Amino acid sequence: MDSMMMDMMSKDMKMADMDMMMDMSVMQACMDACSACEQACTVCSMQMMDCAPACMNCADMCNTMMRGMMRMQGMTSPVMMAMLDACIAMCQYCMDKCMEHANHSEVCKMCAQACKACMDACMAMRESMMMAAS
Amino acid sequence: MDSMMMDMMSKDMKMADMDMMMDMSVMQACMDACSACEQACTVCSMQMMDCAPACMNCADMCNTMMRGMMRMQGMTSPVMMAMLDACIAMCQYCMDKCMEHANHSEVCKMCAQACKACMDACMAMRESMMMAAS
Amino acid sequence: MDSMMMDMMSKDMKMADMDMMMDMSVMQACMDACSACEQACTVCSMQMMDCAPACMNCADMCNTMMRGMMRMQGMTSPVMMAMLDACIAMCQYCMDKCMEHANHSEVCKMCAQACKACMDACMAMRESMMMAAS
Amino acid sequence: MDSMMMDMMSKDMKMADMDMMMDMSVMQACMDACSACEQACTVCSMQMMDCAPACMNCADMCNTMMRGMMRMQGMTSPVMMAMLDACIAMCQYCMDKCMEHANHSEVCKMCAQACKACMDACMAMRESMMMAAS
Repeated sequence: MDSMMMDMMSKDMKMADMDMMMDMSVMQACMDACSACEQACTVCSMQMMDCAPACMNCADMCNTMMRGMMRMQGMTSPVMMAMLDACIAMCQYCMDKCMEHANHSEVCKMCAQACKACMDACMAMRESMMMAAS
Repeated sequence: MDSMMMDMMSKDMKMADMDMMMDMSVMQACMDACSACEQACTVCSMQMMDCAPACMNCADMCNTMMRGMMRMQGMTSPVMMAMLDACIAMCQYCMDKCMEHANHSEVCKMCAQACKACMDACMAMRESMMMAAS
Repeated sequence: MDSMMMDMMSKDMKMADMDMMMDMSVMQACMDACSACEQACTVCSMQMMDCAPACMNCADMCNTMMRGMMRMQGMTSPVMMAMLDACIAMCQYCMDKCMEHANHSEVCKMCAQACKACMDACMAMRESMMMAAS
Repeated sequence: MDSMMMDMMSKDMKMADMDMMMDMSVMQACMDACSACEQACTVCSMQMMDCAPACMNCADMCNTMMRGMMRMQGMTSPVMMAMLDACIAMCQYCMDKCMEHANHSEVCKMCAQACKACMDACMAMRESMMMAAS
């Protein structure tokens, strides 16, 4: 995400006095990973291999997750946590499916990597929120 | 959802020998509730009241949930459970926000009802899956 | 779409004094056809036949079209016309692809019918808008 | 979009022997501009100013456009042209609405710039396709 737009978002969130203290750099990394994962999954689903249904689900979940982080005014920490859990589970499964043919499909391999990166970024986001809450 | 299309989906799921036994009528009701909730939230977000951000998040989550149920080949029971939890949490929050001005806004009141119905349908779906698994 | 919600939408549009006079029943039919087409295409893309990429594109375009009609405050007649043209072109192509194997796939046949219905509804909407403008 | 993934997409498109010769660098720029515009519009719609409905419409159209370019196997040149026209019209309108308060809202100003960039990239894509067809 554009860094200037990110600064604007941070200001908005401060003005809204949101009860969740966010590490904005962790959140920015997470939004970027979601966006990259949506794109990789969209391309990978075009391979028409058996990972395609998982890729389509993962693309939609990642887009919803990314938009949710851009609209933090419209949720709470527990809702965000539940969405992060869903996104992590979806990315994990999609990664596993794509890894099954990572050896003979470069696209699947790259999609699995994007899923892994998104999963890691969501976990980092979750941890960051739990530390802020404690 | 069209009942003939629903029959086709059921057959596909049987052919794919999915490990999760679904009560297809519960799933159909859940997809319909997600669709109705996406629509109500989309209209409600146009009211530009303070529930708007929650409504936008809820519309996206419900659409992702509905599509996920139509693409069960691309997930597993645990992934589905995590997505249902996220959808329930999101609907609950959106309902709460919309209920705050249900008295002076008919649209918010109807949106809150659609959120409640979607939340209930997702809970019924979760229960149905847990019973099948036990 | 729920008829009570539809009434609310109509009132909002009147209050916003939108320059486009809409036949609300034509618009409601169009939104319903878009929603049904998104669902049929989502299920059909799971067949993993050669219509799958068209079905995925069509599902997304129909969802964007439906939401756009629910957010008429955020567009103008010419923008709406351009979106209707895009949706009609997409549905037409998806219908053609699905019709190629309508004989041996019930899902493709039903998807083609949903595409046809959506295309017709978008054309009716376009005509209704052109009559209102003249 | 990741450049390695872009290379894969190009290869797939060649293998599918698509009748439209694409300048892949123009298409990559267009997908990136759509993605940036979806994000800017999503953030801008949170400002709850009068551009919000346009921003929501624009975010959805840009996402559908981006995904469509990643799934060229599922459309034809005329369908793509119609979608580009719709995206251009939507971006233009959103830009105009956001420019109305660009002086006192930094987010609206940035959103207008993202809309402009997306509109230009879609126009370049359209031109590139017309030159290839002639």
